[in-house]
Amino acid sequence: MTESKAEKFLHEQIPITRAMGLRVVAHDDAGFTVEAPVALNSNHLRTAFGGSINAVATLAAYGFLWVELNDGAAHVVVAESSIRFLRPVRETIRATCRRPNAAEIETFLVAFRAKGKARITLFVTVAEQGQPAAEFEGIFVARTSNSQSL
Amino acid sequence: MTESKAEKFLHEQIPITRAMGLRVVAHDDAGFTVEAPVALNSNHLRTAFGGSINAVATLAAYGFLWVELNDGAAHVVVAESSIRFLRPVRETIRATCRRPNAAEIETFLVAFRAKGKARITLFVTVAEQGQPAAEFEGIFVARTSNSQSL
Repeated sequence: MTESKAEKFLHEQIPITRAMGLRVVAHDDAGFTVEAPVALNSNHLRTAFGGSINAVATLAAYGFLWVELNDGAAHVVVAESSIRFLRPVRETIRATCRRPNAAEIETFLVAFRAKGKARITLFVTVAEQGQPAAEFEGIFVARTSNSQSL
Repeated sequence: MTESKAEKFLHEQIPITRAMGLRVVAHDDAGFTVEAPVALNSNHLRTAFGGSINAVATLAAYGFLWVELNDGAAHVVVAESSIRFLRPVRETIRATCRRPNAAEIETFLVAFRAKGKARITLFVTVAEQGQPAAEFEGIFVARTSNSQSL
């Protein structure tokens, strides 16, 4: 899936991403990277609102899993997450969901295909100008449309 | 501060709250409650997007602290947070930041007035039709405009 297709998918599935100005900027060996401008996600200090930073990090992980699953019938939900904010983000919220190692991905995909349900822990770094601004960790669950929803 | 004043304040300070349809619905002994419609915050399952639920919970805590501080020069930021999602939200994301006990609030306000900086842990419950849908916990930091920012 190209970055522009993944971006269109996220905009269609989660409409608030349009108001946030979310863009998919990379999907490669390093992981899945999305960006959103602080101008559309600012707080009272004219830096990025923490809730928007968390949402952009969550979307990096969602996007990564949707593309990896490559299954129109798959649903992804977040079961729990935590985030630490390290420094303010001033212009662009840039979140990269790091690609887990090959064995972790394979275990996840095998479980998903066998049981129609699988979970995986994903790590997302939010950075600006190469400096980490937030560290996010989440447990994500994928299900087929037929399996019982949360 | 009335609910409508607090709502206007949040809309002005954090503009994405308008796109989310955020409303302040209560500020009383139980705490500070905000709501946002799932219609503006939906995901691919037509339930509430986890990132929006987290943002609404964060805003309940922000709103609570801003009103408690009642200090135009105070800034509130979130240092870290975690959230557990218990069940889908189908119509309205309703988040209540629970009022800490009087001693905790007093310790926080005394530290803020003395040092221009103080931190407090706040707990927010997201519920629908009386059923908890998510539990959020965050460490929030208040600073005067003059103190060094994060």
